[in-house]
Amino acid sequence: MTHGGDIYRNEVDIDFSVNLNPMGTPPEVITAMEKAIEKRDLYPDLNQEALKKSMEETFGADPDTVVFGSGASELLMAIVRAINPKTALIFEPSFTGYTHALEAVGCNIKRVILKEAEGFMLSKEHLAPMDSRPDIVFVCNPVNPTGFNVDPDVLEAILEKAKEKGTKVVLDESFYLLSQRAEVVPEDEDIDYLVKYDNLYILRSFTKILAIPGIRAGYLMSNPRNIEAVKKQLPEWNISVVSEEAIKAGIKVLKEENYVKESVELIKEERDFLQRGLMNLGFIIFKSNTCFIMFKGPEGLYDALLKRGILIRDCSDYPGLFKGFYRIAVKKHEDNVRLIETLKEIIYEL
Amino acid sequence: MTHGGDIYRNEVDIDFSVNLNPMGTPPEVITAMEKAIEKRDLYPDLNQEALKKSMEETFGADPDTVVFGSGASELLMAIVRAINPKTALIFEPSFTGYTHALEAVGCNIKRVILKEAEGFMLSKEHLAPMDSRPDIVFVCNPVNPTGFNVDPDVLEAILEKAKEKGTKVVLDESFYLLSQRAEVVPEDEDIDYLVKYDNLYILRSFTKILAIPGIRAGYLMSNPRNIEAVKKQLPEWNISVVSEEAIKAGIKVLKEENYVKESVELIKEERDFLQRGLMNLGFIIFKSNTCFIMFKGPEGLYDALLKRGILIRDCSDYPGLFKGFYRIAVKKHEDNVRLIETLKEIIYEL
Repeated sequence: MTHGGDIYRNEVDIDFSVNLNPMGTPPEVITAMEKAIEKRDLYPDLNQEALKKSMEETFGADPDTVVFGSGASELLMAIVRAINPKTALIFEPSFTGYTHALEAVGCNIKRVILKEAEGFMLSKEHLAPMDSRPDIVFVCNPVNPTGFNVDPDVLEAILEKAKEKGTKVVLDESFYLLSQRAEVVPEDEDIDYLVKYDNLYILRSFTKILAIPGIRAGYLMSNPRNIEAVKKQLPEWNISVVSEEAIKAGIKVLKEENYVKESVELIKEERDFLQRGLMNLGFIIFKSNTCFIMFKGPEGLYDALLKRGILIRDCSDYPGLFKGFYRIAVKKHEDNVRLIETLKEIIYEL
Repeated sequence: MTHGGDIYRNEVDIDFSVNLNPMGTPPEVITAMEKAIEKRDLYPDLNQEALKKSMEETFGADPDTVVFGSGASELLMAIVRAINPKTALIFEPSFTGYTHALEAVGCNIKRVILKEAEGFMLSKEHLAPMDSRPDIVFVCNPVNPTGFNVDPDVLEAILEKAKEKGTKVVLDESFYLLSQRAEVVPEDEDIDYLVKYDNLYILRSFTKILAIPGIRAGYLMSNPRNIEAVKKQLPEWNISVVSEEAIKAGIKVLKEENYVKESVELIKEERDFLQRGLMNLGFIIFKSNTCFIMFKGPEGLYDALLKRGILIRDCSDYPGLFKGFYRIAVKKHEDNVRLIETLKEIIYEL
């Protein structure tokens, strides 16, 4: 799979290809991770008790409904193994990691390709392939790379139809806390779905909101039976003491309502700035609700930017997208200014 | 599974239940991990290029024959998934993690129980069940919890028979670098086996030699086709930037021959001290080649020690072992003295 963030085989000054909270990592979380190195000689807690307690105390989440993982990507693979699907449905374009997880179990993948003419929006008409009773369906919300939230009516229709057809639903909310409708877990509608739908797996990530992709930290919420089955598919010590401490400190920070709110406000402001800039350059933008923007511009932008030390995500390898589609992160103002200025230069030269 | 190191549900001053290098973590590795926190906002390298290059430069290992994981336990599960065995063979007592990995794929496990009367030694007579062509066989070397090295002739017989029968062999050398025959990778006989046997998977760990179980760092060596198949079963970003930096710094330290040599010498000295102490108390010891000792003593030692703040591994849950079998780590001299003195007190009271 191709992903953003490949700074290892490119010379990069500014990386617009990975989508993180532009506020950066909260200082309390950095301190907690540094201190965690002192615990290097202890095995992490197999039962994740302190983390679960922290989720319970802070958000009232039942400890039996949560499991933590080394990033959403580890949990994604464990979910797929626990379900062991023969057939899967993905609405494309979407996160390519689903395909990696499904290929690991040799699953047959059906892809519903959303149309550019419809703005890549998912609607109830796209749900017809669910009639063939796939074992698993993936819903990314907000969608990576397009940046929209799925219409709540459509989401509910997917959940209802999945229940009726015996299909499991993975709701990937990796960018939830950085999206326009963000509230702090679990005071949000999607958590309520967990009570109603025992076929639902909600994936969340600390990576994006705490800007710590290098540390690997995510969590899964589902009913206790599903959680037990997923745990069987995880390595026995699946998160490091550094992740443990980052998550513990992170949960405290997230509890402070201002942090999430300020992050979302900063993102909105900078997203507006970038969207205006891109439109002024004549590019087609897809209205995003979160910390990245997909747009359509001339071919060759990826290479031209990379020559100038800026890495963006060329989206041409996503099913349903083509050359000329790009995704950029919403970053700090000075970086965003540099991106727009550099794009102006490039367009002028072309 | 039960494991050592459960300090989360016990009040513990000294933990003799986990087996680590008593020299502790090299200062260079601690510094590298602390510095790694600065890279928290970077995704780890999907291709593990820097690590592989480091293995190649330092030990001459072909990069296509190595993959790194978040501890041997993550790699163990990925190996089992890549092979997807229907039948497995384990020589017991042995590391309980094999069972966790096999149960995740619903594999049928046949266990050869080694006999106390034979000192739990694995011999060629124990290989008869390999005639039924199990898909996978696990060999722990040195064996956890008994502490012996497998006789090289027996190991070769296993490899030959496995080749003949189409069985894959997982050779778990997690404690290799802390065992009596330790030399720095890959100038050792087991690596030569990789050339001869394409059904062989050698697992190694940085956890024990660098005393960093909290960080999660191990690696697998096998032929490139096997490595490719295992990678498909790993999450896309499977090790953190902290693991990356610990491994990079660790490889440099391991290259200095003195480090491994001094570690093995310290372990030998302290192991001799502990073994004498245990024998003087009338316990039966099993001669170990590595950084832990299994012994047989009166029942109730686990609880009596725990009351005094010392955690050891009660081995009664291992197949083939019973109440009265214990495993202790070889630790620093002052800790070892305290253990023996405390045991004297307990025996006096009993």
